[in-house]
Formats: sequence, C-alpha cells, structure tokens
Amino acid sequence: MELIADRYDIDLPEPTVLLHAEDCILMGVGDGDRVRVSGERTFVAIVSVSRTIVDRGHVFLTDKVLGACSTEPGDRVDVTSSTGPDSVRTIREKMDGKVLSEEQLRELVSDVMGGRLSRLEVSSWLTALYIRGMGIDEIASYAKVMASTGRCLDFGDRRVFDFHSFGGVPGNKITPIVVSIVASEGLLIPKLSSRAISSPSGTADFVETFCRVDLDTDEVSSIVDSTGGVFSWTGATDIAPAGDAFITVQRPLGVDPRPQMLASIISKKLAAGCTDLVMDIPMGAGTKVPTIEMANAYARDLMDLGEILGINVECAVTYADQPLGHAVGPALEARECIETLEKGDIHTDVADKACVCAGMILEMAGIPGGVARAREILSSGRAMGKFREIVAAQGGSPDISSSDMAIGGFSSDIVADRSGFVSSILNKAVVAVAKAAGAPSDHGAGVVIHKKRGAKVSKGDVILTVYAEKEEKLQHALSIARSSEPVDVDGMLLERIGS
Amino acid sequence: MELIADRYDIDLPEPTVLLHAEDCILMGVGDGDRVRVSGERTFVAIVSVSRTIVDRGHVFLTDKVLGACSTEPGDRVDVTSSTGPDSVRTIREKMDGKVLSEEQLRELVSDVMGGRLSRLEVSSWLTALYIRGMGIDEIASYAKVMASTGRCLDFGDRRVFDFHSFGGVPGNKITPIVVSIVASEGLLIPKLSSRAISSPSGTADFVETFCRVDLDTDEVSSIVDSTGGVFSWTGATDIAPAGDAFITVQRPLGVDPRPQMLASIISKKLAAGCTDLVMDIPMGAGTKVPTIEMANAYARDLMDLGEILGINVECAVTYADQPLGHAVGPALEARECIETLEKGDIHTDVADKACVCAGMILEMAGIPGGVARAREILSSGRAMGKFREIVAAQGGSPDISSSDMAIGGFSSDIVADRSGFVSSILNKAVVAVAKAAGAPSDHGAGVVIHKKRGAKVSKGDVILTVYAEKEEKLQHALSIARSSEPVDVDGMLLERIGS
Repeated sequence: MELIADRYDIDLPEPTVLLHAEDCILMGVGDGDRVRVSGERTFVAIVSVSRTIVDRGHVFLTDKVLGACSTEPGDRVDVTSSTGPDSVRTIREKMDGKVLSEEQLRELVSDVMGGRLSRLEVSSWLTALYIRGMGIDEIASYAKVMASTGRCLDFGDRRVFDFHSFGGVPGNKITPIVVSIVASEGLLIPKLSSRAISSPSGTADFVETFCRVDLDTDEVSSIVDSTGGVFSWTGATDIAPAGDAFITVQRPLGVDPRPQMLASIISKKLAAGCTDLVMDIPMGAGTKVPTIEMANAYARDLMDLGEILGINVECAVTYADQPLGHAVGPALEARECIETLEKGDIHTDVADKACVCAGMILEMAGIPGGVARAREILSSGRAMGKFREIVAAQGGSPDISSSDMAIGGFSSDIVADRSGFVSSILNKAVVAVAKAAGAPSDHGAGVVIHKKRGAKVSKGDVILTVYAEKEEKLQHALSIARSSEPVDVDGMLLERIGS
Repeated sequence: MELIADRYDIDLPEPTVLLHAEDCILMGVGDGDRVRVSGERTFVAIVSVSRTIVDRGHVFLTDKVLGACSTEPGDRVDVTSSTGPDSVRTIREKMDGKVLSEEQLRELVSDVMGGRLSRLEVSSWLTALYIRGMGIDEIASYAKVMASTGRCLDFGDRRVFDFHSFGGVPGNKITPIVVSIVASEGLLIPKLSSRAISSPSGTADFVETFCRVDLDTDEVSSIVDSTGGVFSWTGATDIAPAGDAFITVQRPLGVDPRPQMLASIISKKLAAGCTDLVMDIPMGAGTKVPTIEMANAYARDLMDLGEILGINVECAVTYADQPLGHAVGPALEARECIETLEKGDIHTDVADKACVCAGMILEMAGIPGGVARAREILSSGRAMGKFREIVAAQGGSPDISSSDMAIGGFSSDIVADRSGFVSSILNKAVVAVAKAAGAPSDHGAGVVIHKKRGAKVSKGDVILTVYAEKEEKLQHALSIARSSEPVDVDGMLLERIGS
C-alpha cells in the first residue's frame, strides 16, 4: 500500500511506524506486526496503530526508520506486511532447549542490534536463556560474536591486562587504584567500566566527577599507549556494543541470565585485546553471588571461557556482606578513592582489596610477591603519581586532590539509638538510601557509613551521614533510612537458645 | 515530582506516560520503568522517554492513564518511581520451574488485564509457560481464574452442550451446521467463536458475512433461550475476557504455550456454563497437531481438565491433511456452509465432519445412534430450518440462501500443467494465497479448491480459483500461488525404490 510518510517524533526503543487502524485492516497487519517500508531503501519496522494521530493514507516513521529508508517527510513509501527475520526461529530453538551455532548467534545479535527483533522477542530470548542456559562452548561463541560487533583495541604483541568486578557490592571504588598500581609497573591495562544500571554509582559515574570518561576508542588507545592505563566508560567507545543493545530490554525486565552476563563481560575483554584477566567475584548477602558454591561455579565458567578464547583468567572471590569502604555515591566514592591513593595507607579494606587484585595481575605478569609489591607501590606514592598522570590524560587536573570533590550541600547524620555493636549492614538498604538522595545522577549525593560491621557503638554516636544536592531529596532519603535501617546495632549476644 | 498532565493521543497497548529525559534522570527512571502517577486517584504506568514531544515539567498520559488517575489535561499530577506488582515474582517462579498457586495465578491474570504487567513481562511469562509448562491441576486453576474475569452464562439446571475446534485446518466451516443440528433436538448450545488470528477466516469472520456476530452477553443468552443455539463472536461478550488480554502479546510473539491454549479454551467453556463438550482436534501436516501422539496427549489433557472442572469432555481427532471442503475465505466458506445445509447432502467431507461432531453431542445427551440421527436432521432439512431461525435471531435474513453471498468480483483460475493425481494440498500455501487475496478483512476474497487429494486431473483442468475484491490483491495472490504451489499433481507412482 502506498502511503505518505510523516515524521513520528518520539524516542521509541524499536523501529516503529504508526499506521491508521483502517489501513492496518487493509494490509492485514496489527499492533506489533512487522511491515516492510520501501522508500529509496527498504527497511522492516514494527507497527503501532492509531485512529487519531495519523490520517488514513499516511504513515508516521520514527527518525530511525526515515533514515533506514532514506526517506523524507512528504515522500511516498510502499508499506506491506512482512515476516520476522530467521532469528525468530533461533529464539524458538533455544526455547526448545537446542544448542545454537555460532552462525545462528551471529545472526541473532545482528538482528537485535539492527532493531530487526522486537522487544517482545528479545524478552522471550532472555527468558529462554535464563531457563535453558548455554553450555560453555555456546557462551564462548556468543561472546566471540558480541566482540565482533564493534572495533577492537590492538596493542601488537604486548600482553594486555584487565580487571573486572562482577559488581553488586556498594562502594566498590578500587578500579582507578588497581589501574594505577598495575600501570606503575609498565604494564598495559585498558580498563573500561560501565555506568550504574541499578546501583547508586558505577565506576564510570564516580570517575566522571574528576575527569572525562566519554573517551572514544582512539582516545582510549592513545592514552593507554602513553600512560599504560585508562579508566574510562565503555559506552563512549565502540567496543563490543552488542551487550548494550540487550540492556534496553534486560533492565526493565530485571532478568540477567547467566550466559548473557558471562558473554557480555568476556566479549568486551576480547574486543579490548585482553590476554590476562583478574575477575573479582564479590560474594555476600544482597549481591549477585550470595553463596560460595555460586562463586566457585562462576569462577569455573570464567576460567573455562578464558581457556576456549585464549584469555588467561584468575578469579578472586571477595567479601561483600557490607559496602566496601565508607562512602557510597559518585563524589563521595571519588573522594575515598583518591584519599586512599594520597595517604598510601594500606590498612583500609579499600586499599587491601585493591592491592590484592592489582597484586594478582602483577603475579600473572611474572612479578613475584605481587601483592606485597602492589602495597609498596601504593604506600610509596607511585600509584598516586600514575593516577594523576592518567587523570590528566583523561582531561582532569594534574594536581587533583581528594579535597576537590564537590559533595552535596545538604546533609544529615543518623545516630545510634542504643549502644552495642554493628551486627549487619544491609547492602540493599544502603543502595536505596543513596539512590533516594539522588545518586548517581546527582553526583554529590550519597551515604557515608561511619561504623561498619563489628564496630562498637555508643548511643548517640553518628553511624551514617546522608548527603544530597537538594533538601527535598535529603528528606526523602532520610525517611527511607528510617524505615529500612541500613545499619543494625545489637548487643554482642545475637540469639539465645534455650532458657 | 509534580508535573503538568497533557493528553498523549496514541493507542499504545500498555498504560504509558511520556516524560522528558531530564525529568527521568531526576526521578531515577528510564524507558520501560514504572512510575506511580497520582491525580485524584493513583495508577502505575510504564515510562517512555522523549526530548522533543514533551516539555520538561510536563507529562503526557494516554487516555487509559488519564482515566485511571481521574485526571484532566492541565491538572498537576505527582509522578514518582515505582516497583512492579508482586506477579513479577510469580513470573520468576515459573521461570524457575515452580508450581503456582491459584492465588498467584489470580493475581497475575488480574495484573495482565489491568495493564500492570508490561508487555515485556507478559512475553517473558508466555515464554516461561512454553518452556516450563504446567501440571493439569495448575492448568485447571488457571482456567478457573480466567473464567472468573468476566460474566457467566446461566441456564439453570439444564445441561449445556458445546463444541470447540482446536483449529489449524483451513476451511473448517462446520460450526453453524453442528449448532443447527444440535439445537434442532431441543438441546442448548451457546457456541462462541473467535475471529481469525493468523488464518484467512475464523468462524466469527465467515458468520459475519450473513448475520451479526457482535452480540453481547445478554443477547447471546436470550437467543439461546429462544432458539437453543447461537453462533456468535466471543469478543463482543464479556465471557472470560482474560484470554484476549494475552493475545495482544501472543499474536506478535507467535508463541502459543500449551497451558495458555488449554486454559484459555476451557475458561470460556466454564464461563459459558458448559456441562458437556465435544472437542475437535484436527490432525495433519501444517496444523497445530501434526501427529497422533500429540492429538492423544491433548485429548487426555482436555478430558483430565474436564474431570477436575466438572465438564464432561469427549474428543474427536479429525483428518486435517488438506482443507475441509472446497472453499477458504469468509464469504466463500459461508456459501459452502449454507449450501451444505440447503442441499442436505451428507456425502461431502463438510457434512460428514459436522454430522460426526453433532452426533457425538447427541449421544452425550442420551440420544442413541447420534451420528445417524444427525445425518437425518441434516438431510431432512430440519437443520436448515433451525439455522434460518438462529440467523434471523442474530439479525440476518430469515430467508437466507447460499446464493446471497457476495463473492469478490475479481477472480482467476489456475489450471493443471500436467495430467495425474492430486498427491497433496499444502494447508500453509492455501492460507498464504487466501490471505494475499485479502481474506479475512476482504470478506469476498479467498480460494476455491476444485480438485482435492486423490482426484484425477487432466492437463488444463481448473484446480484452483482465486477470488479477490481488488485486482491488485488478486495479482498478488496469484504470484504467491505460482511460487508456493498449494496443489501438487503427480503420477500415481510417487517413488520407485530399487531399479
């Protein structure tokens, strides 16, 4: 059916055309069906139906569809019913429990990135992956396919080290410290991180408070060439962008299937040219990995994947029953991270975890006693020097100091209402309070925990401070803190059995 | 966040609010997330994001959301981030293979009907149902819950007979014949049918060519009271509407999980007050049920469900390797259906299948030799009399005749290019040609198959006639007929083994 194209000015996540209900009947299509739209070029889009916004004989095309058809508003286009791509059948095969070939996975990933699969179909795919899973060879193929969707970093014959945390522990601010220590030893470590998906601060979010993280692939490459390291945001590069195409469905659906998570992580490492990888698997209540069995299973998977794909993988299962360090929220975490580098005090939990992870990398590089060496690099101030060099290369101040961080101007303390010991800190409640205060989008918002697990507390002691950029959000965060009680103070006697 | 409400004039399938991207960041929500919108009343809707259509400080609400919040355009509403309903957890439990309680299913169905689950979540639910399945008790609970979502028919202590075909065979036009025969014997048979989902003509589509099918629940009830039978469209009644709420996702997704299909069928029978049910299970290549094992498994399921729910169920597995009768498409099927009643010729495949199904119902009602009795009712013209009575009650002509049907004015014959025998008729190809010709929305469009399986054909014989309401669609259908060859003519020797 020949129709007049109009611009459909709305940011829909899938390539959409809006058709009049009567025209739909004539074409035998309905909401969610596909149509082939032919302008200068031909593109398949998904149908929405209206009786009011669009007139009969007209079709509204989103910018994505206009572009894909090389069509201008006012042009005539031909619109006909169309079937879905072959990867619809691939999804059905996974639903039926089949093992998929690399070719099938390549086509599916390409169709997701090209908007040729609907969001309903991607939801079905993720659900099928969650239930049916994938064997390790299949995950390796999936990772290879995802790695090939963008550009790759190339450092010639040199070994490329990398580090990745499974996430899930609030306040995990060690990435710039690990990178600075490793790069201090002349090793390459092109570390790319994500922004927060559901947390109050991803690594890219807190690093952004003191230098650029929107580096493109060429900038990342040249900074690593000159300094040995980088701590930037994956999203601004063109490195394995496929993972992000799934996130637009994964996030609202709240499903993170194991094969999807593993392939997505490993694909980015593959594309970044990684030869040696340390994986941090935080384990604890309220994280992605609540038990040691699960941590061991993930470690096994990651090492097996590494073996298939030619990456040397070592894993560290780390303690995550409470936040790491004291600060949660972008600027607060940046301040604690830089303080750790400035002071060179190796006795905090932040410094300890950073030195263990960096030390494992040094050992993989053949430096004996790597953890001790990492501590020495941190305490001597060499790590801080390298950090400033990288920050400057990423457009930050070469004289950066922890006191530069802009913390939210509204704050309030929460004090203990009894004396005792901190028996637990609820990660999920800390996250909820920090997010209510405005993190991650308000960089200055967050939480500082003054008393951590096991600490002795007297009634009236400040146990938590909430920071916000707006009074209203501060009050909102405080009300959530009061109802969720992120820090639990008890006597040492937790439970008394018998009488 | 307080925002000014504007009307979002678009027919989106889920309750949607359109927010400015900057306001989304402030609220910590993104595309596909949920927000609680509070006007006079409070309602949870799904977020879409724009930077152009909506201004900062404003929120666009679809009519559904405006109504649910009792809000007018220009009013101020409070919009805050919200979590999903508990049934999100129910979906996850099914993904994990758990058996669900009736209470969980009731909540889930209510959330789907109320638009509180997103389409992504419904897609995930259907995928999980497809993979994990349900036990028969769980399906029975699901059917009960769906039956309770609308009104129920009530015929007091009288037995209520019904008939249902699994579908999948093109040209299955027996419903008005079965209803007319059964009602001729003074039995109650309130038969409600669906429209085509992917076929060229559902029962409601072809009946609509000669009388009303948009009867509401009260009209259905009163016509059955006066005539004993009805053949109307489920969609205009308020009988177990839950099934249709899933269809808006099922249809574009193309997934029809066994528990969903069974519960949806049985829920409508429960709500229609059915006590005795004959299920027609067409079996054949290109139908939902390709093998006898599958047919037997469905029959077992249906009888077990009937036992749990107090419905006496008998099943007929019927031959479906080719279309039933000669005509496919609304007006063409109506003509063949009425001709069968007019002529009373019991020797066609249409009459035979109708008499077998009607006869099984008569036998369930205690009439011995039911199939012979059904043939007698058809051949004597009593069925035709009852048919005219019901048609008149449904607003059609009391003198209806097969010659009244308005067949498409454009037609073309396809002739055999060799002599031989018809070795196969491909259901899927017949369906594709009829749909290309315009069926079901163009009532006069469709296909007449002159030579069926086993028929002797001479080169030049007309084997197929295609009808359309528009020349353009006729040509389109002919091109599909040429490439898909719905009727296959071979010599009697199909394969020669050895030399």
